[in-house]
Amino acid sequence: MSEARLLSLVEALRILPGVGVKSAQRMAFHLLQHDREGAMRLATALDGAVHDIRHCERCHTFTEHTLCDVCADPERDANVLCIVETPADQSALERTGSYKGLYFVLMGRLSPLDGVGVRDIGVGPLLERIEREPAAEVILATSFTAEGEATAHVIGEALKARGITVSRLARGVPAGSELEYVDLSTIAHALADRR
Amino acid sequence: MSEARLLSLVEALRILPGVGVKSAQRMAFHLLQHDREGAMRLATALDGAVHDIRHCERCHTFTEHTLCDVCADPERDANVLCIVETPADQSALERTGSYKGLYFVLMGRLSPLDGVGVRDIGVGPLLERIEREPAAEVILATSFTAEGEATAHVIGEALKARGITVSRLARGVPAGSELEYVDLSTIAHALADRR
Ligand SMILES: [Zn+2]
Ligand SMILES: [Zn+2]
Repeated sequence: MSEARLLSLVEALRILPGVGVKSAQRMAFHLLQHDREGAMRLATALDGAVHDIRHCERCHTFTEHTLCDVCADPERDANVLCIVETPADQSALERTGSYKGLYFVLMGRLSPLDGVGVRDIGVGPLLERIEREPAAEVILATSFTAEGEATAHVIGEALKARGITVSRLARGVPAGSELEYVDLSTIAHALADRR
Repeated sequence: MSEARLLSLVEALRILPGVGVKSAQRMAFHLLQHDREGAMRLATALDGAVHDIRHCERCHTFTEHTLCDVCADPERDANVLCIVETPADQSALERTGSYKGLYFVLMGRLSPLDGVGVRDIGVGPLLERIEREPAAEVILATSFTAEGEATAHVIGEALKARGITVSRLARGVPAGSELEYVDLSTIAHALADRR
């Protein structure tokens, strides 16, 4: 594969997490040989997403609008704020149907070994939001991994120092697991038993 | 993730081989949160590849031109034709530096269970090419898997019926393995010992 366009495509596919040079070559081959229409659809989707998707002004998740659907919904209980790591985690909580409050999406978690510090996850914007829109209770729903626990600890301490009631999802969630892979009833129970 | 553009992106990423819904979500999140520039580069690369990459008129591999670099090189020995499954396999043979003939790239291999028959790999175009440009010897360098062997068998019989000398890479290549993952010196030996 010495052709410039082909090399560019293989190189560009390697930006995807978990995709090495061999996988990228297989992907390029598959697209060019079997699914050129799909490749064009992917190009258009990437372009559209990059241009139109920004962060919700209230909860920081991805949205095409100023506010995401949840934040724009007047039925949600603004007294409770649930803090999650990613949009996928938020989505898992939503699918339980047992949470009616609002969210704040950190878009990451503390990971000192990977150089992800307090400033790289949305702790600053979270504290600003709490100032602007005080909540009676904040539920820490970060993952039950070492990094998720550290994130919950740092945020929990900062909130308690501001006199805010902080709870954590109950340990019904299996330790060491990532929220988005946990079955919905376990998440629902953990939500009810929050400590 | 209920946003239309985000759903489109996740859906579009699933066209990539080996990418399920969870991986696609992670990829979308990674691109939007950490690498929007890379996402734009990927969109451009997909677009460029789909529009500019076609099949070499002589060997059927991917190229931006009428002929690929190897087929356009007057130094290559047109008396020997090596048949491979994919551009990646061709590339592995080229990297051994021990083959100076031409290639024909099938762009697949027989796989009756997956519905890939003789007509889906380039056997017709291969036979037309042999009529047009007779070669003194054809080397079958398909994989040493059951499917690769079946492919070699079908093509070998068709060529022998036309009175063409057919050889196969020597069994120096470990059985059950795919050519592109084999180390270069093994391929070079197998090429020298072709039977
Ligand atoms: Zn929001
Ligand atoms: Zn060619």
